[in-house]
Amino acid sequence: MVGHSFMGAAHSQAWRVAPRFFDLPLRPVMAVVCGRDRARTEAAAVRLGWAHAETDWKALLDRDDVQVVDICTPGDTHAEIAVAALEAGKHVLCEKPLANSVLEAQVMADAAERAAEQGVRAMVGFTYRRVPAISLARDLVAQGRLGRIHHVRAQYLQDWIVDPAAPLSWRLQKEKAGSGALGDIGAHIVDAAQFILGDTIHEVSGTLQTFVTERPLAAEHAGLSGTASSAGTGPVTVDDAALFLARFTGGALGTFEATRFANGRKNAIRIEINGSAGSLAFDFEDMNVLHFFDGTEDAGVAGFRRIVVTEPQHPYVDAWWPAGHGLGYEHAFTHQAVDLVRAIAADTDPTPTFADGLQVQRVLAAVEDSSASRTWHAV
Amino acid sequence: MVGHSFMGAAHSQAWRVAPRFFDLPLRPVMAVVCGRDRARTEAAAVRLGWAHAETDWKALLDRDDVQVVDICTPGDTHAEIAVAALEAGKHVLCEKPLANSVLEAQVMADAAERAAEQGVRAMVGFTYRRVPAISLARDLVAQGRLGRIHHVRAQYLQDWIVDPAAPLSWRLQKEKAGSGALGDIGAHIVDAAQFILGDTIHEVSGTLQTFVTERPLAAEHAGLSGTASSAGTGPVTVDDAALFLARFTGGALGTFEATRFANGRKNAIRIEINGSAGSLAFDFEDMNVLHFFDGTEDAGVAGFRRIVVTEPQHPYVDAWWPAGHGLGYEHAFTHQAVDLVRAIAADTDPTPTFADGLQVQRVLAAVEDSSASRTWHAV
Amino acid sequence: MVGHSFMGAAHSQAWRVAPRFFDLPLRPVMAVVCGRDRARTEAAAVRLGWAHAETDWKALLDRDDVQVVDICTPGDTHAEIAVAALEAGKHVLCEKPLANSVLEAQVMADAAERAAEQGVRAMVGFTYRRVPAISLARDLVAQGRLGRIHHVRAQYLQDWIVDPAAPLSWRLQKEKAGSGALGDIGAHIVDAAQFILGDTIHEVSGTLQTFVTERPLAAEHAGLSGTASSAGTGPVTVDDAALFLARFTGGALGTFEATRFANGRKNAIRIEINGSAGSLAFDFEDMNVLHFFDGTEDAGVAGFRRIVVTEPQHPYVDAWWPAGHGLGYEHAFTHQAVDLVRAIAADTDPTPTFADGLQVQRVLAAVEDSSASRTWHAV
Amino acid sequence: MVGHSFMGAAHSQAWRVAPRFFDLPLRPVMAVVCGRDRARTEAAAVRLGWAHAETDWKALLDRDDVQVVDICTPGDTHAEIAVAALEAGKHVLCEKPLANSVLEAQVMADAAERAAEQGVRAMVGFTYRRVPAISLARDLVAQGRLGRIHHVRAQYLQDWIVDPAAPLSWRLQKEKAGSGALGDIGAHIVDAAQFILGDTIHEVSGTLQTFVTERPLAAEHAGLSGTASSAGTGPVTVDDAALFLARFTGGALGTFEATRFANGRKNAIRIEINGSAGSLAFDFEDMNVLHFFDGTEDAGVAGFRRIVVTEPQHPYVDAWWPAGHGLGYEHAFTHQAVDLVRAIAADTDPTPTFADGLQVQRVLAAVEDSSASRTWHAV
Repeated sequence: MVGHSFMGAAHSQAWRVAPRFFDLPLRPVMAVVCGRDRARTEAAAVRLGWAHAETDWKALLDRDDVQVVDICTPGDTHAEIAVAALEAGKHVLCEKPLANSVLEAQVMADAAERAAEQGVRAMVGFTYRRVPAISLARDLVAQGRLGRIHHVRAQYLQDWIVDPAAPLSWRLQKEKAGSGALGDIGAHIVDAAQFILGDTIHEVSGTLQTFVTERPLAAEHAGLSGTASSAGTGPVTVDDAALFLARFTGGALGTFEATRFANGRKNAIRIEINGSAGSLAFDFEDMNVLHFFDGTEDAGVAGFRRIVVTEPQHPYVDAWWPAGHGLGYEHAFTHQAVDLVRAIAADTDPTPTFADGLQVQRVLAAVEDSSASRTWHAV
Repeated sequence: MVGHSFMGAAHSQAWRVAPRFFDLPLRPVMAVVCGRDRARTEAAAVRLGWAHAETDWKALLDRDDVQVVDICTPGDTHAEIAVAALEAGKHVLCEKPLANSVLEAQVMADAAERAAEQGVRAMVGFTYRRVPAISLARDLVAQGRLGRIHHVRAQYLQDWIVDPAAPLSWRLQKEKAGSGALGDIGAHIVDAAQFILGDTIHEVSGTLQTFVTERPLAAEHAGLSGTASSAGTGPVTVDDAALFLARFTGGALGTFEATRFANGRKNAIRIEINGSAGSLAFDFEDMNVLHFFDGTEDAGVAGFRRIVVTEPQHPYVDAWWPAGHGLGYEHAFTHQAVDLVRAIAADTDPTPTFADGLQVQRVLAAVEDSSASRTWHAV
Repeated sequence: MVGHSFMGAAHSQAWRVAPRFFDLPLRPVMAVVCGRDRARTEAAAVRLGWAHAETDWKALLDRDDVQVVDICTPGDTHAEIAVAALEAGKHVLCEKPLANSVLEAQVMADAAERAAEQGVRAMVGFTYRRVPAISLARDLVAQGRLGRIHHVRAQYLQDWIVDPAAPLSWRLQKEKAGSGALGDIGAHIVDAAQFILGDTIHEVSGTLQTFVTERPLAAEHAGLSGTASSAGTGPVTVDDAALFLARFTGGALGTFEATRFANGRKNAIRIEINGSAGSLAFDFEDMNVLHFFDGTEDAGVAGFRRIVVTEPQHPYVDAWWPAGHGLGYEHAFTHQAVDLVRAIAADTDPTPTFADGLQVQRVLAAVEDSSASRTWHAV
Repeated sequence: MVGHSFMGAAHSQAWRVAPRFFDLPLRPVMAVVCGRDRARTEAAAVRLGWAHAETDWKALLDRDDVQVVDICTPGDTHAEIAVAALEAGKHVLCEKPLANSVLEAQVMADAAERAAEQGVRAMVGFTYRRVPAISLARDLVAQGRLGRIHHVRAQYLQDWIVDPAAPLSWRLQKEKAGSGALGDIGAHIVDAAQFILGDTIHEVSGTLQTFVTERPLAAEHAGLSGTASSAGTGPVTVDDAALFLARFTGGALGTFEATRFANGRKNAIRIEINGSAGSLAFDFEDMNVLHFFDGTEDAGVAGFRRIVVTEPQHPYVDAWWPAGHGLGYEHAFTHQAVDLVRAIAADTDPTPTFADGLQVQRVLAAVEDSSASRTWHAV
């Protein structure tokens, strides 16, 4: 695993827990964690439970005890690591967004396609697909329970930088993060919406906004929690918020909004879908619940059903607890690890593929282009 | 109409509005309002739209322009007025609780039975029955959608006297009000639960509590809004809260709680019912909604449905607005007036009858007895 | 009053009820209702409680017993009636949208300005402003409780024509209705958002969509409830859904969505506002509630507060019931009537003015232009 | 660890995960799992990650690699194992209810008291105390934010045996389980309510009910998931539902309801508390949320706050994810393990102690006595 910050902790928990609840055809071993700083990486290895620590990711490619490279670093490093790992015959799990540009993402998708011919697998970490309620949403759409889809409204609302005194972390710097809310959280709702619909966005009209353009420099840039130094301020070079209208290939209209300035909303991922036969609504603040309106029912008793997605029938749930005992944020990472291991064992491509990640990247790029040109833009 | 305070205003609105939205077989005319104080009653007549004012309720019985006597006074006056009105051949609508004692209620029910033989009708004002969501709840139970009922949990939560400085209004004095939370609001949930189930409570185990036993005397005692005088304090002689367990004739178990000390709950009437085939949940804070769980559905998509009870199919709704345009508190009074007028025109007994009111009174009395004896008590 | 369908019934209820709960400086008398068909108009007069019936709106202008003309007809007739009434010295209350075009709206606003110089008043019926929770929202923003506003997301979701068999009512014909979801319901959320913020939209990027382009002809076109005839089908000439991004003069970003295809949402008006100091959220499905996040509170106890907007302190509420006894859809019409009467008596201009209505019309026109040109458009 | 079924899996996850997220003064090692059947226990050791397997719990007491005995077996075995373990100098974590009778619980509490003198610690597994929202609730009460407590209403609602065809598992047999809903889930809400209030119940009036008295015999009795055999039926010897009223030492009134017949409620633990200064409400179906009403606020903006309990300030949360990334059911077990390890290292008694468990047992016994005698019963 490369990177041991927020995502590194989540992925470690996934590898640790997956074999304890799921029957896996292969047994994951947590071999090596890799970071830039030796002392911190070694401490992370102990804390997170990795057998070895490395400070150069290239070392992983030569190790026989590494079959999967799990990339949890900022987006600017994804392409180089992923392509090299695939070429070295290592399966790759790469955090989202796939890359910081369409060009890089294209290179990665090409590498993944070549690797697949050799049985080497690549997967991009759109983890929210594996929240049981979102998987169930996709299933209901695929079963036709919603009919023809008319509307998608998707929001990813956070508020962690609404305070202008919040420091300039790497996530606010374009050269590291590629973009701001758009790539960090907008990417998730683009993927989730396309995943649930089984459809793709083909054109967008969007706008990006940076509300606070100058922020205190952080003493260090390693995470969300850096504190302001006395070193002055620096420019925010990414968007604080990204809004766009979208048209899907199948005819649905979408509104998308990703922001870090929704005061009071910590991690609200909301997806609402209206079709000719029914509707769905999801909010990650209540992540074990999916609301479903069945429009074919008698109007006298019709209503949005609050499905508590903790039944054995529901995706992934059977491995966990009895009905009504909800899951948390990191369980989706466990499901991701499970699906990757199963795909590797079955010699099939796991989803979302790098091609899926590339498609999301194209949507994000079209939003940026649209914001610049102030017109609709094709994906 | 006798009385022109809170309930008088609500009943006036009902008589005013009912013929404007509903097709009625008879046309209500707002003839006479009656109060103790001439000036205030005449002002009320103008404000509320009554043609005449009287200060002695007995005068109503002699007037030819009065066919219905609508009793909106405190409970200690109900029996005398209602019995006299029925004997004078006037139809009677009487606010709840029917009376302050079982004995009085029994006298009233007997009078109503005699009057019915003469085609004179009597109805007690358990208005919440006519909230569309509660009517719908009864319909679903009657249709068997819940199966055998196992559980009822009913709460009526208010907080208007949680402040010990709230004055000693007539509602806190036993000789006027009969009881406190028990009769004022507990009566409503007893009636609503029995109404929805189509069943009666046959034994109870309860407890009454007065948290604040001494309060400032109000300058006047005419309503909820009296302000504290400098005249000192007086004893609270009714319960602040009433809690009881109940067994229904049909086998259901109930928990009931009525309190004026639920800080932050202004008028939360909650009724939840669990049956072998499904469940219902209602909260008056969201009065246009009924939650319904259909336990016969596939567990993968089952969930409490949030039925917005504003469809033309729903009870009373067709007369009002398009779907999604909710009703308010006083609409139930309009529905009550409509049903009374229709029963009179059809020469049938309206419900809830005085006998129904008597049965509720017996439940309340059993709760008081149980509280005193600290044992279960039959109704 | 001109028109006696859905809006006519709502306005009649307002005039009937307003003086019964509010102290008004003038006493409204329901003098004349006007419709095209004599028999139906006379029936409406009886049912709704108007003293007289006319079939030509021009007759109202000559009547001495008419001081206010209340226009409840389709949008294509507003300009002619309103201008004539104002010129005849009658105060005017005109349903929204003010007109079917900016040009007409401009003529009306000019007429209102001239009339105001003579003490003749004009008001446009953006009724939702007078839902207490929305009035409270404006007050909180005006008090600075939200700080600088970053985001507005507003949705008006209905589903009454999601069925392709729903007939071609006048609301689906451009020559009568001007536009579809955009003008009918989009206008409401534009006004509500601008009202709450105390700010105006200055540019938009939008798209309009008609999902069902051909519908059965209705036997008659007088309302929502027409049934399909055997006369074949006709083209839908208005939008089923309107989506747009918006920028406010003060720097806020907005997403707006108005649709008649949100299956299961009957009349969901949702407005969410995020500012630097706090946030608000409202949904008309729970119309007596406003959610407020105070971002200045300690994070350990901060959270969206569910304010039940039924306290005496809340706008308009004091005239009605005790705390916790909610209001319904039509109460906002009563508040509108109250405010109009008070403005007339005080010899001041009521709000929203025709100029406000014109500004909303300009936003709607900009959305249409933007949809056609596929670019951002200034208002 | 003794037992490897539902609770065994939850406890294993706790021991596995605790040291990965929390800084612990001692490092837990998962040494030995113990079960009755060798093959199944060995399989559990592999699956759950225990180094060794034993089939006799007494063997644990002699092993030097066992410092803590974690008891996850049915209640009838708790006393013997716990007392022996404590006497052998092993710290003990014992699942709730502490025992199947007050007598056994008393013996255990005495043993714990003696052991504590030797520095040997005992803790009972009322895990829900360690759900962050419930810990926060206690903190708010302890800080006086609720003032004097008037009301507690607590419900634990499940529905897993509402179907009469559900088999007769060990949980439905008195000799194994001690009681039904009362001890299994009622115990949790008794503990949680007492914990939050920092007060104890001193008298109760309750009733127990078995709705389905005969059920199909399960093929095996090892868990919730046994399937019906053709071996006929057997009697249900425990309660399906337990309801009781309670009085707390400090003057609060409580209503408690534990049932396995609340159709549609899978694991709804609801606790609502009303005090003179404020109120709290919690529902485990939305376990990362606590609702708090601050009655000292201006009524114009007061309302129940939906606190999303995922802030770094909140109990236990700092070790996990950024704000808004919710926890799941099993996280409370991890918190329990953390607190036990820290208490052992600090040489202090962890809570809840066996004495706390005994007190809960006394409440449960009083409910049973009250149900039998149909009167109030002291604890």
